[in-house]
Amino acid sequence: MNFFGSDRFVLTTDSARELYQNSRALPVFDFHNHLSPRFLYENPHYESMTQFWLGGDHYIWRAMRLAGVDEELITGKAPDEEKFLAWAKTLDGLVGCPLYVWIQMQMSFLFDEAPLTAANAADIYRRCNEKLKSDDFTPRALLKRFNVTALCTTDEPFDTLEWHAKLQAEVKDLLVLPAYRPDKLLAASKDIWLESVKKLEISEGMSIRTLDDLKAALVHSLERFAALGCRTADHGYEGLKYIDPAGADEAFLRAMKAGIATQADADLISSELLRFLGEKYAELDMVMQLHSGALRNGNTRRYQALGADCGVDSVDTAPGVRSISGLLDTLEMAGKLPKTILYCLDEGEYAGLATLAASFACGGIRDKVQVGSAWWFNDHERGMRNHLTVLMENAMLAGFVGMLTDSRSIGTFVRHDYFRRILCDVVGEKVDKGEFPPALAQKIVNDICYGNSVAYFGGETLTAHCGI
Amino acid sequence: MNFFGSDRFVLTTDSARELYQNSRALPVFDFHNHLSPRFLYENPHYESMTQFWLGGDHYIWRAMRLAGVDEELITGKAPDEEKFLAWAKTLDGLVGCPLYVWIQMQMSFLFDEAPLTAANAADIYRRCNEKLKSDDFTPRALLKRFNVTALCTTDEPFDTLEWHAKLQAEVKDLLVLPAYRPDKLLAASKDIWLESVKKLEISEGMSIRTLDDLKAALVHSLERFAALGCRTADHGYEGLKYIDPAGADEAFLRAMKAGIATQADADLISSELLRFLGEKYAELDMVMQLHSGALRNGNTRRYQALGADCGVDSVDTAPGVRSISGLLDTLEMAGKLPKTILYCLDEGEYAGLATLAASFACGGIRDKVQVGSAWWFNDHERGMRNHLTVLMENAMLAGFVGMLTDSRSIGTFVRHDYFRRILCDVVGEKVDKGEFPPALAQKIVNDICYGNSVAYFGGETLTAHCGI
Amino acid sequence: MNFFGSDRFVLTTDSARELYQNSRALPVFDFHNHLSPRFLYENPHYESMTQFWLGGDHYIWRAMRLAGVDEELITGKAPDEEKFLAWAKTLDGLVGCPLYVWIQMQMSFLFDEAPLTAANAADIYRRCNEKLKSDDFTPRALLKRFNVTALCTTDEPFDTLEWHAKLQAEVKDLLVLPAYRPDKLLAASKDIWLESVKKLEISEGMSIRTLDDLKAALVHSLERFAALGCRTADHGYEGLKYIDPAGADEAFLRAMKAGIATQADADLISSELLRFLGEKYAELDMVMQLHSGALRNGNTRRYQALGADCGVDSVDTAPGVRSISGLLDTLEMAGKLPKTILYCLDEGEYAGLATLAASFACGGIRDKVQVGSAWWFNDHERGMRNHLTVLMENAMLAGFVGMLTDSRSIGTFVRHDYFRRILCDVVGEKVDKGEFPPALAQKIVNDICYGNSVAYFGGETLTAHCGI
Repeated sequence: MNFFGSDRFVLTTDSARELYQNSRALPVFDFHNHLSPRFLYENPHYESMTQFWLGGDHYIWRAMRLAGVDEELITGKAPDEEKFLAWAKTLDGLVGCPLYVWIQMQMSFLFDEAPLTAANAADIYRRCNEKLKSDDFTPRALLKRFNVTALCTTDEPFDTLEWHAKLQAEVKDLLVLPAYRPDKLLAASKDIWLESVKKLEISEGMSIRTLDDLKAALVHSLERFAALGCRTADHGYEGLKYIDPAGADEAFLRAMKAGIATQADADLISSELLRFLGEKYAELDMVMQLHSGALRNGNTRRYQALGADCGVDSVDTAPGVRSISGLLDTLEMAGKLPKTILYCLDEGEYAGLATLAASFACGGIRDKVQVGSAWWFNDHERGMRNHLTVLMENAMLAGFVGMLTDSRSIGTFVRHDYFRRILCDVVGEKVDKGEFPPALAQKIVNDICYGNSVAYFGGETLTAHCGI
Repeated sequence: MNFFGSDRFVLTTDSARELYQNSRALPVFDFHNHLSPRFLYENPHYESMTQFWLGGDHYIWRAMRLAGVDEELITGKAPDEEKFLAWAKTLDGLVGCPLYVWIQMQMSFLFDEAPLTAANAADIYRRCNEKLKSDDFTPRALLKRFNVTALCTTDEPFDTLEWHAKLQAEVKDLLVLPAYRPDKLLAASKDIWLESVKKLEISEGMSIRTLDDLKAALVHSLERFAALGCRTADHGYEGLKYIDPAGADEAFLRAMKAGIATQADADLISSELLRFLGEKYAELDMVMQLHSGALRNGNTRRYQALGADCGVDSVDTAPGVRSISGLLDTLEMAGKLPKTILYCLDEGEYAGLATLAASFACGGIRDKVQVGSAWWFNDHERGMRNHLTVLMENAMLAGFVGMLTDSRSIGTFVRHDYFRRILCDVVGEKVDKGEFPPALAQKIVNDICYGNSVAYFGGETLTAHCGI
Repeated sequence: MNFFGSDRFVLTTDSARELYQNSRALPVFDFHNHLSPRFLYENPHYESMTQFWLGGDHYIWRAMRLAGVDEELITGKAPDEEKFLAWAKTLDGLVGCPLYVWIQMQMSFLFDEAPLTAANAADIYRRCNEKLKSDDFTPRALLKRFNVTALCTTDEPFDTLEWHAKLQAEVKDLLVLPAYRPDKLLAASKDIWLESVKKLEISEGMSIRTLDDLKAALVHSLERFAALGCRTADHGYEGLKYIDPAGADEAFLRAMKAGIATQADADLISSELLRFLGEKYAELDMVMQLHSGALRNGNTRRYQALGADCGVDSVDTAPGVRSISGLLDTLEMAGKLPKTILYCLDEGEYAGLATLAASFACGGIRDKVQVGSAWWFNDHERGMRNHLTVLMENAMLAGFVGMLTDSRSIGTFVRHDYFRRILCDVVGEKVDKGEFPPALAQKIVNDICYGNSVAYFGGETLTAHCGI
């Protein structure tokens, strides 16, 4: 254990340390991530620390590019050890960066090593590669060490879900649920749209000519997901824009004819599908997750070379509160507002979204609409403190469903521990100042660590597996 | 006295405690709130703690809805004691929420009780209900305990002001002034507009057919207000949008004919009326207060059930600095910029508004244009610290007119004490660090607590009553 | 030395003090300011403290206006001593204001006096005026005391650069480089535009009838700048708006014919010129600096009386990330993205810009695109902490080029020391908490103080002079 595993890390008061000691052992339900179900099923050994960290982590790629490292040593064909050493050298400059912390937490918790620096990188590379050969370091073994009892992946509507079926049939200590992510089918102004519609025709065995056809196919697909225990759908798009969808049917026909939609038609189509799916989620008691505020693939040159999720996304700052309000209001007017989690990359929207969540609160479900954990670029100590603070000020912390990794990398599941420390420090500060009773604070913390998310996502399979 | 009345609450340095000890006894001029003049005149006893707290406080309603409480126990017909217990149970989850603090401050300052929790709620309910029967707990008696010497209510232009007249004639220790709030008459795209115009015709005994007619009636009404010592007008609207008002006269005729205006016509009409009224305020030496950044009544279903101010408003994040700049510039070009206080729900606008205020500063009046106290959803410790910090950084704290409650509830006048603690802590930190002389700091704090607001709002009645 | 020169000022941990002791003596390269090269060449004695401080400093003017001081005592014809005393009296109210700190730092570092207050102002005025007569207080002598080895001024493309030539020929211990600021030539919707085009025709001896002519003249001018060691160009405008520039040639012809452009044509012209110049900067290895988020000259009445830079500017909050992304993407697609520093007045854009910078990071140059130091209204302790924090969280602090004054006033070069203290405190906090190794931290701090900026701006003249 190094400093990043000690009880001084992040925790600044005795109250915080006490809250942490009483919650750190709680299990983890990671309700939104990008792990591959096939990878989880096959559960292979990692080949090297380079594969373990640099395999697909665009956070790391960005940091190395900022440090002036040649792309060959990042996503290129350089030997693994050279890449690893270049990454360690980059780390030496990452003071105050969340990546620095996550890496050193892994050094401590997973590998029992001192913090990685350029100076000790060669030794650490050798020793850790050895450890990766052990069965204690397969993906599922690592998830077990992180105390993960259940998780949700992210899946396309036309996915066969075959790996999910195998996982559920054969793996008993980890519950892996699919989650529904229909973005490509909603984005009619993008190249990938028509191809995705065709994939859905095949996966559902249904012909799609009209918007109603598409809706029917989506429902068919959603029901396949539900049958495998799916509890949530996720929408991530740029500039979330909900407009009155009148005219969407005609817009869809134009788009199908042209193979692609104008932006105006695309907005009609996505608004109508979002409204329609929102109602379906409510009917199926699924949680709707909305991710807004991203400017994706901004560096076209790099995107063309490496594809999406290559580290060229950024925070967009266009205001979105009114648009999201319009969507929620439409669903609520129809009596079909599902449980909803709002995420936004722009911290300037947090207060808007938290007050919106409160405006759509209603009896029976705590924090029915809520602002999700500090996402992506905000997933650092200050960002998480800020997010929790906004919840306390303008919504209600007690019903918060807590942390998720949104991750492609199992190592970064240390972020659950990081989050718990920050949560305990934020709440502990109120206790320490005399502004909140310790016993009530402990219950709130514990609920956020585990119980709230299981109860909120609910469903028989999940609650039975989690024993809540 | 519980912890929330002690000198450790909020105050973190000796310098802060010293500043607070020397300012806490200063009187209060609450220059903007929503108390009913009739209620203040009639000065009835509260029936129960439930009525005292839950009677009309949408902050509390929202919190209970977030906690999953049934609406029947919030705004419904459930018995008072059940409502109270449901509220106390909700409080147990409100760590870090300003409501939690305000409630416990009232427990300490007004009722001399320990902090309220679900566990002691039944006892507290019983004891406090007893206290409410005493004459020490009527609305005016409470205001006296809060050391309020003067306050401004919020009144429609067509109000007869009869209760104000009675108050001024019969109540001598509390000066109650009317304040002018013409929102309904400026919002020509809303249902309530035409009806409001008709009410104004009746109250002023003037026929309104043209925009000039409306202006004349508004002036007539404003002079009635002025005759009762009115020192300020207040404008609150969504998406404050000042545009070149050319064409407003024709837009008004169209709106009168249709009974309602298009949004484009409504923007012309409100821009012209805002400009016109701004000049009138300058002529009458009244303070213009502008409240922007709200998304009101966003949950239509709840709004239709309960009406406005039912707890379904949120923070809007559309940028407004350029629009407000246009209004101020137009008035300044005409040599008729009134003293102006800018409020905004979106903290992201604070620096914009503070630098705008500085751009329109001019000789003779300290902080002539200023950014008003952290409003509504920002009215918590971090929000007030942030607001004061922006004033220090980009405007001038020394001339700030300080706290107002904007409240419908007398209990929440504890916020003046809360504000003073925060002010003393913010300024005290500078003293404690060695970055500002203590004697100068004390003067600044004291002025902000009382003297600045009385001097800024001014007028013979007010200054004579307040002895400043 | 007063408190503002001590090692307790700003520095809150032993780690911070240690970092500061090991970096405070490093030289300064002030790569963007508004000093006049003629003034630097002529190097006159200041006539009085009033001239020294109030001569052209709109920060001070704004503060005095906010305090209610008559304009006669600010920019008017009142005697110098009266102005000085009015300023000292204003200072007494400026708790928490960066101006207060900068003034007291100058009292300490330059004049060895106690902090200035209204009470000691008359004595300080007399004593400091005496000191200003000494040769130790000429502009260049002061820059030497501030340890400035090199600086870049801000110059119009039609400038003859004669004073720069003289400076480089005759002044050996201070390297003064010109910097290219073509704003007036890009803003075709402004009055000053056509006149500026005509000035450029004369300065370059070239006729300008088409957009291509203007481009050629700009390149001619830019090469004159480059010949005098210019390493950077700077663009500052309101609402930075990069749009597809197709049609810019025709828009230019229309604008030349009319003498001024419509806003739509102006946007086409400025977009095309920005794109064109960006490529040229890349070819010449110059740094492009972009300043966005200002609402300039908002108080028309004051602007008409006193001209630009008179203290009536404010922070604009219109979102700009997508527009800047479009410009950078266009340049990167052409393989001609220059090193770029992004500044913004709206702190709400920082995370957007930092993540954008990371999206355009590429091998070989550390922090090739970066977010420049907290600018103008953000140039205070909290603002600089916030800026550094964003760099740590979402870009990379290690490659940051550090502080610049952007100043018209030599006294305010104390801000370099202020920045270094804040930098050391921010980084020192990470060291003190155990989250970063001290030795690596010291290297990062030292690089930011001096080495990074010299290396980033580069060029033979600069690096040879600075010995890096």
